[in-house]
Amino acid sequence: MNQQPQQCDIGFIGLGVMGKNLVLNLADNGFTIAAFDLDNDKVSDAIKQDKFENNSDIERVIGCSSYTELLSKLKSPHLIVLSVPAGEPVDQVSESLIGAGIQPDDIVIDTGNSLWVDTVAREEKYKNNFILFSSAVSGGEEGARFGPSLMPSGAPYAWTRIQPIWEAIAAKVDPKTGKPLERTKPGQIIEHGEPCTTYIGPAGAGHYVKMVHNGIEYADMQIICEAYHVLRAGLSLSTDEIADIFEQWNQGPLDSYLMEISVEVLRHKDNEGKPLVDLILDKAGQKGTGLWTAVSSLEVGAPAPTITQAVYARSISSFKELRIAAEPLLSGPEQITFSAEEKHAFIENLHDALYCSKICAYAQGFQLMKLAEKEHGWQLNFANIAKIWRAGCIIRAAFLQSITDAFQRNEDLESLILDEFFAQQLSKNQMSWRKAIAKITLMGIPAGALSSSLSYYDSMRTAVLPANLLQGQRDYFGAHTFERVDKSKGKKYHVQWGTPDKNMIEI
Amino acid sequence: MNQQPQQCDIGFIGLGVMGKNLVLNLADNGFTIAAFDLDNDKVSDAIKQDKFENNSDIERVIGCSSYTELLSKLKSPHLIVLSVPAGEPVDQVSESLIGAGIQPDDIVIDTGNSLWVDTVAREEKYKNNFILFSSAVSGGEEGARFGPSLMPSGAPYAWTRIQPIWEAIAAKVDPKTGKPLERTKPGQIIEHGEPCTTYIGPAGAGHYVKMVHNGIEYADMQIICEAYHVLRAGLSLSTDEIADIFEQWNQGPLDSYLMEISVEVLRHKDNEGKPLVDLILDKAGQKGTGLWTAVSSLEVGAPAPTITQAVYARSISSFKELRIAAEPLLSGPEQITFSAEEKHAFIENLHDALYCSKICAYAQGFQLMKLAEKEHGWQLNFANIAKIWRAGCIIRAAFLQSITDAFQRNEDLESLILDEFFAQQLSKNQMSWRKAIAKITLMGIPAGALSSSLSYYDSMRTAVLPANLLQGQRDYFGAHTFERVDKSKGKKYHVQWGTPDKNMIEI
Repeated sequence: MNQQPQQCDIGFIGLGVMGKNLVLNLADNGFTIAAFDLDNDKVSDAIKQDKFENNSDIERVIGCSSYTELLSKLKSPHLIVLSVPAGEPVDQVSESLIGAGIQPDDIVIDTGNSLWVDTVAREEKYKNNFILFSSAVSGGEEGARFGPSLMPSGAPYAWTRIQPIWEAIAAKVDPKTGKPLERTKPGQIIEHGEPCTTYIGPAGAGHYVKMVHNGIEYADMQIICEAYHVLRAGLSLSTDEIADIFEQWNQGPLDSYLMEISVEVLRHKDNEGKPLVDLILDKAGQKGTGLWTAVSSLEVGAPAPTITQAVYARSISSFKELRIAAEPLLSGPEQITFSAEEKHAFIENLHDALYCSKICAYAQGFQLMKLAEKEHGWQLNFANIAKIWRAGCIIRAAFLQSITDAFQRNEDLESLILDEFFAQQLSKNQMSWRKAIAKITLMGIPAGALSSSLSYYDSMRTAVLPANLLQGQRDYFGAHTFERVDKSKGKKYHVQWGTPDKNMIEI
Repeated sequence: MNQQPQQCDIGFIGLGVMGKNLVLNLADNGFTIAAFDLDNDKVSDAIKQDKFENNSDIERVIGCSSYTELLSKLKSPHLIVLSVPAGEPVDQVSESLIGAGIQPDDIVIDTGNSLWVDTVAREEKYKNNFILFSSAVSGGEEGARFGPSLMPSGAPYAWTRIQPIWEAIAAKVDPKTGKPLERTKPGQIIEHGEPCTTYIGPAGAGHYVKMVHNGIEYADMQIICEAYHVLRAGLSLSTDEIADIFEQWNQGPLDSYLMEISVEVLRHKDNEGKPLVDLILDKAGQKGTGLWTAVSSLEVGAPAPTITQAVYARSISSFKELRIAAEPLLSGPEQITFSAEEKHAFIENLHDALYCSKICAYAQGFQLMKLAEKEHGWQLNFANIAKIWRAGCIIRAAFLQSITDAFQRNEDLESLILDEFFAQQLSKNQMSWRKAIAKITLMGIPAGALSSSLSYYDSMRTAVLPANLLQGQRDYFGAHTFERVDKSKGKKYHVQWGTPDKNMIEI
């Protein structure tokens, strides 16, 4: 009964959790896949699961036991998708494909979270052997299976070949509402809707954009955790009470996948009926993309304190023993008691703090991409980037439609906080946000991401900052010179500070 | 009358502001110098100034017009000091010296702010041509002339040769009081006292330590600027009133060079009697060391939010046009009015905020060096590093003696905030610090470095952080697993979240 196709549409290498789900997604959408993994069990497992889900003997996934066999099973020019860990493994597979006879017009798509500069270097390195294309995937296991957000970049020629496949497997959005069109069952496909994929730009641009997506994700997760911490440790609410609050918040402008799963995590009980979240060790892991975003923001000079604080929060969480030693040594304030009315008002303020901090985190991420675009000569379409984040990816949220709208109103928008909608949202809620932060400060609950978002807001909206004194200090000890507000732009001055004569030198 | 010495003690390349002053310092201390600069006028100028200051015809500085001439004028093995900009110029001079016949046992000391990994690479690159040693210099023009803090690193053999020279020209500290022994006039030398130089470690370690010094300097400058901003924009005090407050603060635990020069900058009037600081444009420059420190803190996982906020503050200051556009669009709170009593109390709180934030900035810097030491296998002596920062350098302050004491009490101290003295200072002042931050938040004055220091403090002293929820989120969308507080350390778990069955998988 085996109706093995003569030639498969796609070669697939790496059948871990993400890889297997992408293969099943491709198969659902009518593509035939030649699949290979160094671990042969993973290949059998993918084939078995596809047959089970497909409920037939039709082979949509063909197992291969070598790179050579994989190449032999593909239509020419070959299209090969890699789902292997970022870094060294990408090069190992590339070398193996060269050994197996890959051709210069064959396309290899790296779907991992490679560091974008590595991707630029690899495209160059392998250009005589094959076309290295990249397309990061967001959405975790679930997204990979039923529709991820895909951020492709590289040679435009390769994209014309990949585009129909990517548009088929990507998450879809209802163009009228901007909301995800859900797909939850094997075999189910969504033929209409806007696909969450768009060509990002030349090599590296896609991985850069995915990196910033993850940086924003770090920030978004951290501000939710800080709000939880304030409610749990500051107001002594139960995990179920907090889940109720988050569930309610998820009906408004904070509506997002991360809020939704936070509710589910908070509600989950262990076998004895205890909230599982209380039993999870508070040491956070990280895999690099958040810190790369923070590093890049420092390097291109794009302020991104909310993102960086989220990265630091993960580092701080890892110093568990130090924190246990510090707790009895370092005093905090007395516990603050709230009347029912005060508690209610405070929770409303906290909602606004979360919402405004979220706006700041996205503003930081988009400004970072804008400055990186300038530095690297990419031409990014920010409205489209926001569009493909509306569904499929981890930071998907109703909110992304507002960002799309902002960049559609003004494609040169320098910062989201200058957009009429977001400026109005921030202005309306800033006092409430401020009250929450002041109170949290007095409560002694750490909330570095929420509070640094507010100082970011206050910095960005302040025409005159104290960098005048700083420039004075720098000129004092290092003769670094300064400009004057009452003289022509660009003219530099140096002073013999602290001397009785007031000579100023124009440089 | 020319009593030209047969052979000079030191070759010196690069006679900019820092270079010339180091040359004059060396000459004051009895060393003869063969000096070269690509700009011949700078050589003549250095010689002229030395003769003028020396008030004789004795030639202590011998001008050279080529690298070959420079080498010919030196005792063997040659000892050459470079004072050229970090980066490319160091390699250009190195190549020129190779061309001029430098020998493998000759020593070249890079005194610029090179990136430490470049220094490691250069030591290796030139090892067959000469010994590259490094020794960053802190203290600006003034320090270079009358005693800087010097952070030497590289081959121990080279250090035995350099040590007596470095100890002669370095700033000196009174071993009894821990305070600088001032030297302010040409010709003056200080024979006693502890010199502000100590061997830091192998190649790169010295530049790393100097980089962190500068990172701390960024933080220290920024928190002073934020305090100034709060007093100026929040309390509407005049620059002279703020100078009075800072002068008073400079008598207590905040006693430091940076406070001292801030007072002088604030008091400086232009020719029309206006405070000059009000006329300086609020766009801060930066040369890299602060951002390298922030980047390194992210890479080694050492939380350093105060330092990073200081770097971001400089970036934000540079977006002058954006901030001018944002000010009318983005609302802030109404101006808060203070009674005389409230104002007085608030200023005291602000003092404590500055003091505690300063402790946090130093704690971050020292923890960063500790983690970097582990990563790179250096053996840093933190008591000695704090010692050589007590005088000569930009962050010199009474405070450094307390850091020295802390590391002398416990050389393995994991963080300064765990030291008995600093823990007690923080605990005593935390409530006052907290009140200042809460008020500043309500005032709408941006103070990212002061406020992120407090959230750093609150994070580090909290045994249980909300990273449990974060790990739950990560396991939910990415199957990243988590540990449990009620199970053995190191065991990983994964849950099918949000499903009715409560199966948990042990990984």
